[in-house]
Amino acid sequence: MGASFSFLEDPADTREAIMKATYLALCEHGYAGLTIARIAEDFEKSKSLLYHHYESKDELLLDFVSFMIEGFERSVPAPETDAAADRLQRVFEHALGAMAADDSRDFLQALVELRAQAAHDARFREQFTDNDQLVHDRFVEIIESGIESGEFRAVDSDRVASLLLATLSGGINQQATSDIDQTEAIREELDRYMTEVLKAE
Amino acid sequence: MGASFSFLEDPADTREAIMKATYLALCEHGYAGLTIARIAEDFEKSKSLLYHHYESKDELLLDFVSFMIEGFERSVPAPETDAAADRLQRVFEHALGAMAADDSRDFLQALVELRAQAAHDARFREQFTDNDQLVHDRFVEIIESGIESGEFRAVDSDRVASLLLATLSGGINQQATSDIDQTEAIREELDRYMTEVLKAE
Repeated sequence: MGASFSFLEDPADTREAIMKATYLALCEHGYAGLTIARIAEDFEKSKSLLYHHYESKDELLLDFVSFMIEGFERSVPAPETDAAADRLQRVFEHALGAMAADDSRDFLQALVELRAQAAHDARFREQFTDNDQLVHDRFVEIIESGIESGEFRAVDSDRVASLLLATLSGGINQQATSDIDQTEAIREELDRYMTEVLKAE
Repeated sequence: MGASFSFLEDPADTREAIMKATYLALCEHGYAGLTIARIAEDFEKSKSLLYHHYESKDELLLDFVSFMIEGFERSVPAPETDAAADRLQRVFEHALGAMAADDSRDFLQALVELRAQAAHDARFREQFTDNDQLVHDRFVEIIESGIESGEFRAVDSDRVASLLLATLSGGINQQATSDIDQTEAIREELDRYMTEVLKAE
């Protein structure tokens, strides 16, 4: 989830305008400091509309997580014609690009705080389970198409997908919660992993 | 950080007794629900002692994170005589074992909530930066000793360490915040990574 989202530039409808206001308020105040009133401050349209759509801050944030997941689906269109390795790279870049961008740090931090809600809130856990499953399944699909075309070896796609997902998810989490920047090291090593473990000889 | 800690069985001193009470209260109430009064409920010794040592919940929790880091250092003694691959496996098992254990789920969830504090609190970020650096350096040291002995190829130890750290850290984070159990898949794939990318042919 990177720094350049079309809904931030030009919200297409009311929901996207609400999501933009939520994004901006999350970046500014973090999860703990967020209130519907503060989201309303960043909302360009009628504030009553916002209160009309959502009963609580968490309800709005759950919809926000769901919106970001839809965004992930849209942002990785995965045309069947591309090489599997290129498609994998594109998913890596989606995560690594967000990690590296200075202007997405606030957002990554808010995302980590949102994700931590899942530790004690079943509704957030459900959303992040959906999110993980979606990215995992996307990885599986790409890897299997690579195996089928002979581009990749006959690896266990579920295991590879789990490793890739954990690596990117951990990288984002660490980037947001420590002062060490591992983006470049992870990028290079994932590249080597792809060459030495995935690609057919 | 697994479910079996010696300080839980038999606290060696007052600090360990406080850490045990903190661990139990974290498992029961999570970060958000935690108060010094609730920690005091699990504290076997004088409650005033607890208030005497720590001014706030966060101060106590920062010391707890620091204590867990020391615990990590103690739990991976890394005797120089062992093979590098075995030493790596032991660090993996430290994290994967905690992920798989049912009775450590509450603790992993509390840990993820603690880590999320680092998104907006510099003191927590400093602690988790130390933690990441420590595990990273441990990986680097093991990998370089493996290269030196001819057990591993001449890989870039910093990159490999970053990948391993992100994978384990992401696995723990996902395990605590989603309903998908990827422990076994990650274990198997890390094993294959070690065989195909690290080990000398």
